[in-house]
This record gives sequence, structure tokens and C-alpha cells, in this order.
Amino acid sequence: MKEKGLLIVVSGPSGAGKGTICQEFMKSHPDCALSVSATTRAPREGEVHGVNYFFLSHDEFKKKIDEDGFLEHAIFCENYYGTPKDEVLRMIESGKNVILEIEVQGALQVRSHYPEAVFVFVIPPSLEELEERLRGRGTESDEVIAKRLERAKAEFNYVPKYNYILVNDTVNDAVKRLEAIITAEKCVMTRNYKSIEENFIER
Amino acid sequence: MKEKGLLIVVSGPSGAGKGTICQEFMKSHPDCALSVSATTRAPREGEVHGVNYFFLSHDEFKKKIDEDGFLEHAIFCENYYGTPKDEVLRMIESGKNVILEIEVQGALQVRSHYPEAVFVFVIPPSLEELEERLRGRGTESDEVIAKRLERAKAEFNYVPKYNYILVNDTVNDAVKRLEAIITAEKCVMTRNYKSIEENFIER
Repeated sequence: MKEKGLLIVVSGPSGAGKGTICQEFMKSHPDCALSVSATTRAPREGEVHGVNYFFLSHDEFKKKIDEDGFLEHAIFCENYYGTPKDEVLRMIESGKNVILEIEVQGALQVRSHYPEAVFVFVIPPSLEELEERLRGRGTESDEVIAKRLERAKAEFNYVPKYNYILVNDTVNDAVKRLEAIITAEKCVMTRNYKSIEENFIER
Repeated sequence: MKEKGLLIVVSGPSGAGKGTICQEFMKSHPDCALSVSATTRAPREGEVHGVNYFFLSHDEFKKKIDEDGFLEHAIFCENYYGTPKDEVLRMIESGKNVILEIEVQGALQVRSHYPEAVFVFVIPPSLEELEERLRGRGTESDEVIAKRLERAKAEFNYVPKYNYILVNDTVNDAVKRLEAIITAEKCVMTRNYKSIEENFIER
């Protein structure tokens, strides 16, 4: 029997570095897959269907919502975005660990559809460091940075909904801890009990 | 603030290889410590107080029981054996991860005294492999091996009391997974929430 993969949901405030961690993680883990979102927005130059996004029409997207075809979905700037359920479950069944980078509201939706997912919240080493990182981009006004920081602070209230905290002190160390979380989760008793019951426990 | 260490309780049937895993693990982890038991039995040649065991008189042991000084204790062949609480907690407070190799009944006692411990159950790849390993020692009669196997099978009923299953396919891989479990447990949300609340969440 092929061992099922895990669904790893990664959230965290803007500037904490969750995107970088996921990208670095993927470089060394061909046995894992990044979940590809579906969207109704138009493809930008160079974007490939099935790689960057699954590009759907509004009608296709709404039909998929009605069929309960998303692990989560949301509207942003008049376009739909969502995580196709079938695609993710197919990869998990094939043994791949699927990484889903998503904001907190989406993560809560995923949990209601797939409670056995592993929820990881990426945090910066400190609020000061977060502010520095947001400023470091150098492209935003003080006002925008202040707003982002406020939003980040609000997101920390969702921390209790997550299983693990990943402090992004260095990307390398954070990636190693993410690897450890995945390895450990595969050893979790409840994920293995059925197999133990079948192979080791007499009735 | 110094980060507290973890108490890792390792159990598993005789022949599963928990002793070998713990010893191999310790070789590469000077930041961890193996818990040293107390006993009332007489020291054997070469055994050193505080290294192999803490050797106590019956009166000393009983006094310590009355003072709730053990994480667990038991009587075996008319001698007391137990895990001194102060010693273990002192090491944990100093930041050391403490490995406690112990049978299932003792593990249950530890859990009632220290529920935040991490409980790991070591299993062989299969019952056939377990029997082979028990036979491989070459020192026991068929009858003794049959009894050990029966006892091992009985111990599998305690699996649901543990947090993790460590399949001992190869010692090397099992040690790596034990390392991952410890790393992941340090990231567990509930172990970090207090610090996040203090540093990231405004009231």
C-alpha cells in the first residue's frame, strides 16, 4: 500500500518569509508539490495554465464552487481564487506531500474540508525584524508599511489555529525545521494506528 | 530566557531495538541526556553511582516515594527501580532534552506526572522480524522466545497512549526520525504560544 502524502498548509504575515521558505523547500524536495491555485483573473505574460494557476472562466469557477470542488476559495479584486480539491487530493493519494501557501482565512477553510492537514504558521524573529523586512523592500510608503504591520499583528491572533510555529530566523534553518515537521508528522501515532492495528494487534 | 528541554519517553517491545536507538542517538547529541534510574539493588562490578544508576537504600527509596520524588517507579525482583523527578526536571530546565527509555507501565506513570513529555513507541518492521530478532540473540529457548513474543504483542495495545511511532527498519533511519520528532516538537504551537503572546500579540 502506497503511503499517503501530507497536506502542509503554510501561512504567516506578509514579510515573514513564507514564500521564500516554500520555494527553497521545493528545490530540495522533488517528492513534494506546491499546490496550484485556480483563478478567474486573466493570465499575465508568461504565466502557464497548470503551472502558475489554473485559469478558469467565472462560470467554470462558480460551477466548481457549487460542486464543492475547492478546499478554499475567496474573491479578491473582483476575481475568484481557490485551491482545487481534486488536484490536491490526487497528489496526496499518489504519495506526494503538498505544500499550500495561503492566508489565514483560507487556511481555516482548508481545515474544515481536510482536518488531517498540517498547519504551519511562519513568524519573523521579532516585530522589529518584520518591520525592517517590510521597509527593506524599499518600494512602499510609511503609510503602506504601517498598514501591513497592523495587518500582520492582526494575523498573529490566528496562531492558536495552527499546529506548528516556524520562526524564520534564517531561511536555511526554517527549511530544515519544515523538513523535520513533515518527517515527524509521518510518525504521528494516529496517522499510523490503522496499519499497526492490522499488522501487530490480534483480535 | 533559556529554552526548556523536552522529556522524550521511549518505549517498545523487547527486541524492537529501543535501547540501540537511544544509544546511537546519544552519540551524536551531547545536548541531550539519558535519564539515570534509581534502584535499591546492589551495584554490579564496574557500575558507577550517578552514571549507571543512582544506588539508594530501601529506606532512602521509600522516603523519596513518600515525597513524590519519582516520575515513575516499580518493584522488580524485590528491588525498587524509579526515575528521580528532580534530576530529570533540573536537566530539562537547563535546556537539555532528556531521553527516558522505559516500559509501558512506567511511561503511563510519567505521563500523569509530566503530561508535556513526548511519548515515542518503537516498533519492528513486522512481527516476523521481531521474532527473528528475538531468536537472533541465540541465547533463549523456544519457550522463552514465545513468551517474549506474547508479551510484545500485548504491549502493542498501549500504542494509542503514545504520540509517535518509530519504526525501527534501520537504526540510522530511526535515529534520524527521532531527531526530526524532537525538532518538530520544539515547533509545536502550544509549546511556543506563551512566547508569541508576549512578543507579537497586543492586548
